[in-house]
Amino acid sequence: MNSHETRPKPVAVVGAGLIGSSWAICFARAGHEVRLNDNSEDALRTAMETIASALDDLVGFGLLNGQAPETLMDRVRPMTELDACLDGVAHVQECAPEAIPAKQGLFNRLGALTGPETVLASSTSAFLPSLFTADVRHRERCLVAHPINPPYLVPLVQLVPAPWTDIAIVDRTRQLMQAAGQSPIVLDGETDGFVVNRLQGALIHEAIRLVSEGVASPGAIDLAVSKGLGLRWSFMGPFETMELNAPAGIRDYVERYGELYRRIIGVEHAERMWTGPALDVIERDRSSQLDRDRIGERQRWRDRRLMDVVASLAAAEKRTPWNS
Amino acid sequence: MNSHETRPKPVAVVGAGLIGSSWAICFARAGHEVRLNDNSEDALRTAMETIASALDDLVGFGLLNGQAPETLMDRVRPMTELDACLDGVAHVQECAPEAIPAKQGLFNRLGALTGPETVLASSTSAFLPSLFTADVRHRERCLVAHPINPPYLVPLVQLVPAPWTDIAIVDRTRQLMQAAGQSPIVLDGETDGFVVNRLQGALIHEAIRLVSEGVASPGAIDLAVSKGLGLRWSFMGPFETMELNAPAGIRDYVERYGELYRRIIGVEHAERMWTGPALDVIERDRSSQLDRDRIGERQRWRDRRLMDVVASLAAAEKRTPWNS
Repeated sequence: MNSHETRPKPVAVVGAGLIGSSWAICFARAGHEVRLNDNSEDALRTAMETIASALDDLVGFGLLNGQAPETLMDRVRPMTELDACLDGVAHVQECAPEAIPAKQGLFNRLGALTGPETVLASSTSAFLPSLFTADVRHRERCLVAHPINPPYLVPLVQLVPAPWTDIAIVDRTRQLMQAAGQSPIVLDGETDGFVVNRLQGALIHEAIRLVSEGVASPGAIDLAVSKGLGLRWSFMGPFETMELNAPAGIRDYVERYGELYRRIIGVEHAERMWTGPALDVIERDRSSQLDRDRIGERQRWRDRRLMDVVASLAAAEKRTPWNS
Repeated sequence: MNSHETRPKPVAVVGAGLIGSSWAICFARAGHEVRLNDNSEDALRTAMETIASALDDLVGFGLLNGQAPETLMDRVRPMTELDACLDGVAHVQECAPEAIPAKQGLFNRLGALTGPETVLASSTSAFLPSLFTADVRHRERCLVAHPINPPYLVPLVQLVPAPWTDIAIVDRTRQLMQAAGQSPIVLDGETDGFVVNRLQGALIHEAIRLVSEGVASPGAIDLAVSKGLGLRWSFMGPFETMELNAPAGIRDYVERYGELYRRIIGVEHAERMWTGPALDVIERDRSSQLDRDRIGERQRWRDRRLMDVVASLAAAEKRTPWNS
């Protein structure tokens, strides 16, 4: 790492709503000077109040990396002028309202006001990047960097390139996010809903289906997740969960339980998906992440991590109970 | 509460494999005398070792309710004789291998050896209760009580009645589980995979579909859950998550995002499910659990709980890092 990388460069956050304010906290916590832009002075005032209040909470939970809230506040500069805000920034995080024409206009303007080395990232959850970055000057530096709200608590960031996005730009954004303490994932193409809403949608859809079939109440289904499945998923994804639930790993799991799942999900043509090339990809990926002979060790790690989560939720329940 | 309920009654755990040993810990932690039955002395010896080792871990994480591991060990009695094991127990938790004829035979025997007031609960994840309890003496006391492994860490228990199960028996089992610190949910009917494997299957299926479409790598998909969706799901189910993500609650959420989800999931005839009677049920259930004018308050609770989980996972990462 050279000295360049040890001093984070200024970033611009364009749009000072809830998402913009949250991004400002992330970047400020990582040491960036943050130019927070909005053409409404009122919006900027509200944003600074929102940020101050969130920082008060965060410091109490030890989530500011040992820094004082004031130090972070000092790094955030509310600015009404877009021009001035963009001067010398390496990364622009767009957080404007979700409407295609507005995003198009804004991205074209951002493109005109910055040099080709400035990354232009959109926070959009609704639109594929090709829908609003086609006409941007040096459009190869445009992509979506979609956070889960609020990003200062939920580290996942989905990086979605347009067909014309330069892979080096994706990589630079990945590094910036990682250095800021986020967990970026890179999508290999544009897909509606990205990865997160596809997964979330599948779970919601099945939850609604269970209600519509009269199998269980919505409250019971919520408990099935919050007192069951979700405890594991707070530190382990579905593939690793499968791998650690069968003695010989993920293919063994699919052989044991695949038939049950295909039957209960009732998906046509699922056979190919559960057994064909996709399973090869999954198995290869998992074994690159974990040697098969360390599954037992990793299971013990999982059980201890689960104890941590459970113990911490029990303590939290005492500290901040909900009196409904 | 009368004095009867303050002294938990003896329970029998039949089958001393991994599931049986885990149940023994749950019941012993809650103060029950546990008769742990297996016809193999070797299996019982191994089970007692497994239990002792888990208790050592659990006490370190403060998960024994302030009790010493030895106190719990004293409550667990390994027994090879089924007869003696069942004497005077209020609840039998069957944990035999997953095979229908074996379960049928065992349940018939349990029915013959116990009075009609003894609850006979199966831990099976694979079989509907009507498949192996039809011929049991007083079969109205049979049901499935399916744990998520290990139940001393993951509190969810799915109670699945057969068509002939007495509702009072379901309720008594619910109370026993609740008193033992579990989170029981009651299914309104028999369905393959129960609730948990339907939900888990839907998520796994969509994860595999994303891989087969080349949208993202398995590792990226795992991160989408473990660094994103799963953090919320560790303390909130999908319906409450939806409710807190739209200003006016769950119907508002469906109006805002339902179309996107229906499109990305690509489900035929989904319209009816997302908007019809099922949505009415969900909305009614949610508003019985949370007054609409307290959504903002509950959102703040959510954000603080999220801080707890995130802070605890960060601390756990330092304490028990994984060196892959």
